[in-house]
Amino acid sequence: MERTQIPETTIQRLPVYLRCLLQAQQDRKPVISSVEIAEMVGTNAAQVRKDLSYLGELGTRGIGYDVEALIAHVSKSLGVSELRRAAIVGYGRLGGALKSYTGFSDRGFDIVAVFDASPDKIGTDADGVTIRSVDELDAGLAEEGVEIVIMATPAAETQALVDRVVGAGIKAILNLAPVRLQVPDDVAVRQVCMSTDLQILSFYLAQGGER
Amino acid sequence: MERTQIPETTIQRLPVYLRCLLQAQQDRKPVISSVEIAEMVGTNAAQVRKDLSYLGELGTRGIGYDVEALIAHVSKSLGVSELRRAAIVGYGRLGGALKSYTGFSDRGFDIVAVFDASPDKIGTDADGVTIRSVDELDAGLAEEGVEIVIMATPAAETQALVDRVVGAGIKAILNLAPVRLQVPDDVAVRQVCMSTDLQILSFYLAQGGER
Repeated sequence: MERTQIPETTIQRLPVYLRCLLQAQQDRKPVISSVEIAEMVGTNAAQVRKDLSYLGELGTRGIGYDVEALIAHVSKSLGVSELRRAAIVGYGRLGGALKSYTGFSDRGFDIVAVFDASPDKIGTDADGVTIRSVDELDAGLAEEGVEIVIMATPAAETQALVDRVVGAGIKAILNLAPVRLQVPDDVAVRQVCMSTDLQILSFYLAQGGER
Repeated sequence: MERTQIPETTIQRLPVYLRCLLQAQQDRKPVISSVEIAEMVGTNAAQVRKDLSYLGELGTRGIGYDVEALIAHVSKSLGVSELRRAAIVGYGRLGGALKSYTGFSDRGFDIVAVFDASPDKIGTDADGVTIRSVDELDAGLAEEGVEIVIMATPAAETQALVDRVVGAGIKAILNLAPVRLQVPDDVAVRQVCMSTDLQILSFYLAQGGER
């Protein structure tokens, strides 16, 4: 099957549309227009129509989109029609905060495994999951059927652990460690870096000061 | 003074260039080429030269960029030549993880204040800063000379607190709460949403499965 060619910027907006559609569903709205979606997500209606057109012929001109049908389509495109199994590597303060966050399951993700290197933590409970040793990373990811791994590890130890995660066949990594990962081309990586976000905000402050 | 017109995508890459330059400085490299920078950050040399050209005529053809001079230029553009004062609102597990993260100061930020609504936490120590009540938000932000606020609050309470943060004159907000903020046009917001990042990764997994 030919790979769908959806622009990267559109892909990044799909989760935002989905969240907005789920809100409309909760508000018991059967139909939603591109103008309404645009207002909710802070873009323009033409952009919404163009983005959603990549998923197929979904809307009816002059009427709008069937909310239920569009949720099903966007969820399918995002591969979150069923819960995906994820693991956290690194159960420090950040890893612990993520494990305890209850919002992931609403968005399609179940944290089924947690790994750490500290003997004090291994075998203890992490919000309903028993912490496993990073020595068991390869076997543990396979046993738990994990598809996505979240790295919340110290920078210096991250790449070596990622190499093992990739070796275990994982194709999607969310990296919270402040280090750029080297992975094969067929592994998708998203980098969360709050220092970078703060610097971008600082840029706008610096520019604003010059006005 | 006319506002510098640097494209949004270039602004987002400046922090990455800065990190790479600081690495070169640590490695005692006096000069760096656009090819070397491109390799370190995972882009191409033409992109690096174009991005850096927005900051002025900085490189020497055939030689490269003076590392120290370029660090000074990029830092100035990002407004991180001196430490910027930031505050965290919400001292739950995520807020606690951020406060204890030691990497912010290396990147130009000092977390000087922490606010929370819980009487149990107010007045206690948060890694060297005494937690203040959100009731003191307005006065506290001014007293501490805060320029950037990080929201690590429950979704439902975030907008009301952001309204007060904006009312206190703050022009830059990093939002970790899973909610879209409404702010005036002159306030810069960066949204961190790991659920969205996971869904984007899931998209690539779903596509990969169809190949």
